[in-house]
Amino acid sequence: MSDRPLAGEAAARDAADPLRALRAAFTVDDAVAYLDGNSLGALPHGVAERLAHVVGHEWGRLGIRSWTESGWWAAPERVGERIAPLVGAGPGQVVVGDSTSVNLFKAVVAAVRLHDGDRARDEILVDATTFPTDAYIARSAARLTGCTVRAVPAGEIPGAAGPRTAAALVNHVDYRTGRLHDLPATTAALHAAGAYAVWDVSHSAGVLPIGLDTHGVDLAAGCTYKYLNGGPGAPAFLYVRRDLQERFDSPLPGWNSHAHPFAMAADHTPAPGATRGRCGTPDILSLLALDAALDVWDGVRPAAVRAKSLALTDFFLACIEAYVPAGRAVPVTPAAHRERGGQVSLACPADDAAAVMDELLRRGVVGDHRPPDLLRFGFSPLYTRFAEAERAAWTLAAVLRRRAT
Amino acid sequence: MSDRPLAGEAAARDAADPLRALRAAFTVDDAVAYLDGNSLGALPHGVAERLAHVVGHEWGRLGIRSWTESGWWAAPERVGERIAPLVGAGPGQVVVGDSTSVNLFKAVVAAVRLHDGDRARDEILVDATTFPTDAYIARSAARLTGCTVRAVPAGEIPGAAGPRTAAALVNHVDYRTGRLHDLPATTAALHAAGAYAVWDVSHSAGVLPIGLDTHGVDLAAGCTYKYLNGGPGAPAFLYVRRDLQERFDSPLPGWNSHAHPFAMAADHTPAPGATRGRCGTPDILSLLALDAALDVWDGVRPAAVRAKSLALTDFFLACIEAYVPAGRAVPVTPAAHRERGGQVSLACPADDAAAVMDELLRRGVVGDHRPPDLLRFGFSPLYTRFAEAERAAWTLAAVLRRRAT
Repeated sequence: MSDRPLAGEAAARDAADPLRALRAAFTVDDAVAYLDGNSLGALPHGVAERLAHVVGHEWGRLGIRSWTESGWWAAPERVGERIAPLVGAGPGQVVVGDSTSVNLFKAVVAAVRLHDGDRARDEILVDATTFPTDAYIARSAARLTGCTVRAVPAGEIPGAAGPRTAAALVNHVDYRTGRLHDLPATTAALHAAGAYAVWDVSHSAGVLPIGLDTHGVDLAAGCTYKYLNGGPGAPAFLYVRRDLQERFDSPLPGWNSHAHPFAMAADHTPAPGATRGRCGTPDILSLLALDAALDVWDGVRPAAVRAKSLALTDFFLACIEAYVPAGRAVPVTPAAHRERGGQVSLACPADDAAAVMDELLRRGVVGDHRPPDLLRFGFSPLYTRFAEAERAAWTLAAVLRRRAT
Repeated sequence: MSDRPLAGEAAARDAADPLRALRAAFTVDDAVAYLDGNSLGALPHGVAERLAHVVGHEWGRLGIRSWTESGWWAAPERVGERIAPLVGAGPGQVVVGDSTSVNLFKAVVAAVRLHDGDRARDEILVDATTFPTDAYIARSAARLTGCTVRAVPAGEIPGAAGPRTAAALVNHVDYRTGRLHDLPATTAALHAAGAYAVWDVSHSAGVLPIGLDTHGVDLAAGCTYKYLNGGPGAPAFLYVRRDLQERFDSPLPGWNSHAHPFAMAADHTPAPGATRGRCGTPDILSLLALDAALDVWDGVRPAAVRAKSLALTDFFLACIEAYVPAGRAVPVTPAAHRERGGQVSLACPADDAAAVMDELLRRGVVGDHRPPDLLRFGFSPLYTRFAEAERAAWTLAAVLRRRAT
């Protein structure tokens, strides 16, 4: 320990952490520093038990009766209401189901349609370093609605929005760099230009306050298997601001989005509220696993999560600076808190980054590599300890020193 | 028993049933006649155990490593290969994920695009009594591709297809009446008209041989929670005929459909093969529950399933004729085998149908009611017994007699 000057500080910070008790709600291996909760959140206790009940009792014993008796039919809205406070949404605006990609498609097409056929609004902006699926989906939505897509650095979207802008699809946090984009200012600028703001909050939901309502976001979608710990490929969520719901015109108007689905009507009458954002039959097993996973949030304040998140990433950056040979792993995540999400990304030489991450994994430090040159480390405030941040930095320094010899 | 003249025959048929041993692979309550497997298939043993392993070990212990080490990433194709023989598809053409509605959307838009922008092909046909979501999705696909939708009775689609027809979306089995539509002839007629055939096989997959390859079907989608017993809202499947795959142009080109998804490239290069039909991150818990559920099909011949299905529905119709007062519950499902799927629907007076089904449920006979006037009874050959068919008919007769007094 004597050669690890920040280990003592890590221990002290863990001891003083007001969220420290939450770690016991997760399956985490103390022998591993799991810093990949920004990719796949850890397993909360209670999920396995809940799933066993859903399968054995609700499906196995009650069968189709569970669509009503076990509340399956309304689960997309009910679980949405549990996510709502974590993204700053009042009731009745969040629904869960489908993948993030599918929800982004609904949102972007619907955003264009909110212009009521105004053909002058023929451009969709995306942030230039967007997660790939966002750009692919935006281009598909554009192609199907007679628009074009223009990629602009996220910080320049406020200036780029103009009379041709129908909507912008922007990532709240850049998945590579961990940079937090300015949601309030960007949304306001889009509105000033007469455009709609569609946010992908996959990398911010569950790690920082988003304030969808407060900042007047129009539409948003996000992932539940990162900081919300819903399980691999868990269903995503869609936010439709209340005053836009009546004009929300989904390109995927499946029968679950009908006002009276069991009337089996030939014509589609969209349901009121967030239900309009549903499509097909909800994926109950995954949805109720997510429901169980959300139990860990009961009584947790988003502000406390953000405070610990920043403290963790600050501390990790300090450990990197203290331990890692200068210039060998350079933070690309902004130092300024207002520009930082829940992860820290370090740039390595591109020909070395994959091998460095492989060696970290072998030594029990789990981050991930995003080509060509980035090492990503995610910090999940509900279960990540300061000691893991310190260990990761120490191990990285050892790996880098060894590879240099 | 003396007043139930067909009970003895039911017992004899169950004793002679070559598939009778399969019932032991399911959680079924012998006190209930569960005739709703066409809505939600029964729970196969092994699902709960598999899910417990996926959650506890693969997610809880291995975490993100499971995307490769536990085969999560390739599960959509792997599970697709297990469904393929059940729908008459050779390898490399079926992929699992998303809902049926979402897959129908991919298929219908892609079918229109197969005409390479030929604007003269501006009409999509649907069967007039289609399941609601099919019509809603077809209309959305039409709206986004500059087409219109025309609803035609399924039997008239061959004659209706013409030079304007881009594609037809047809249900293989009518969800209300249980009528089996003529897939080979309809597909051939569509091809003769230069149109593509998109089939919804939700109500035929797992209960009768479909022969997608043999009959030259272009695209198909189907549900896995009915006769395939995948669990509530289990992911659907998409079939893309091999020789169309290179031109399959999905409207939902999420990152999972990319040839090199982890290259995180700005441009979308579609993956080869059925993978092109994927969209976002697969819903692993539901997908692997389905995977486990498919174990019961090992060694089961589709022809044997069809033979038992027809024997069950024949026998149920005979029981209805023998037990039910004439004219009180009239079969709308065709008597001819070549026109019958896996369910039998009976028409009741519309003001009485819901109450009759409620009373049946109270007496342990589980079918469902589809407004206004239909009682549906589904027969799942892997676990339904002839005795249940007899009991359902007997109970229905008792309910109807009682309501008449």
